[in-house]
Amino acid sequence: MPLKLYLAGPEVFLPDAREVLDTKAEMTRAYGFEPICPGDISIEPAPTLHEFGLKISGVDEDMMNRADGVIANLTPFRGIAADPGTAFELGYMCAQGKLVAAYTNIVDNHFARTSDFYQGQVTEGEDGRKRGPDGLSLEDFDMIENLMLHGGVERRGGPIFAHRAPADRLYSDLTAFEQCLKALASKA
Amino acid sequence: MPLKLYLAGPEVFLPDAREVLDTKAEMTRAYGFEPICPGDISIEPAPTLHEFGLKISGVDEDMMNRADGVIANLTPFRGIAADPGTAFELGYMCAQGKLVAAYTNIVDNHFARTSDFYQGQVTEGEDGRKRGPDGLSLEDFDMIENLMLHGGVERRGGPIFAHRAPADRLYSDLTAFEQCLKALASKA
Repeated sequence: MPLKLYLAGPEVFLPDAREVLDTKAEMTRAYGFEPICPGDISIEPAPTLHEFGLKISGVDEDMMNRADGVIANLTPFRGIAADPGTAFELGYMCAQGKLVAAYTNIVDNHFARTSDFYQGQVTEGEDGRKRGPDGLSLEDFDMIENLMLHGGVERRGGPIFAHRAPADRLYSDLTAFEQCLKALASKA
Repeated sequence: MPLKLYLAGPEVFLPDAREVLDTKAEMTRAYGFEPICPGDISIEPAPTLHEFGLKISGVDEDMMNRADGVIANLTPFRGIAADPGTAFELGYMCAQGKLVAAYTNIVDNHFARTSDFYQGQVTEGEDGRKRGPDGLSLEDFDMIENLMLHGGVERRGGPIFAHRAPADRLYSDLTAFEQCLKALASKA
């Protein structure tokens, strides 16, 4: 029985989401795994948008419960941070002790992106912490994301890859995704 | 034995993080729970910043493993979405089947914030999905956050509160936090 991998990431929001997810699924199979993608199951309509959203949440959690692992696309989404849905899913899978892997299609690390958010206006306070003009501290741990996400994967021995994707393929470039597959396959 | 609640949120980045967390801890005790806060334990230095970050990740996960539940502050952080670390932690606790609650100090819902991100340039495509000028679809489910976060809490019967906090108390206003405590206490 091949190990089942849940493919998490904001590519579900792309206009060509189905094509991108199908390509990811095909590559996942090529590396000996069985892909599970959000959106694989058509969800019946619900009386309200809100109830429909709850249904999707339930279906996606069921998929994660059935999966043996996750590859999370942490590429910054509508800002400097990973899609919160993907962050939630990575935490969910870490808590279940499953195989975890993560990638991002931007090579600037978490600190660099946060520093850019403050246009470089970062100062070191008396407590030794770096802070933006709003007083909020910046994590500077040479990680691709907030330490809970990066640390959750690395501490479990999971692979993490960062790749500089062309801007027009920010969510659909699969170079780093394939690196994750290769790393997981070499351990499986 | 009082139930232990992990207090997750981006207030750990505030200049007065300790004071805010102490106030939250005190309120948590007043409602009959035992608080567990990230940052409660002083972490020994590590040879590199990266290793220090990994240590914090481990300590915070241990705290979540010891906790019976979580109250997650999902107030948008450095953009339109929740802090990804908090999103990870909420997913982690949902996966463990623990008590979950969430609040936000901004009343605009997820759709409204995403629409603002696109300055209202949102159109409905042939597939019936609303999209920004970049083609990415918007979730419109009358939820405070991405459906995995909001749905994960609501589907478990957890309370969710949104409160309009003054701008200078965006992360430290505890009105909605207290509503969560009250709701959890009434069920416990």
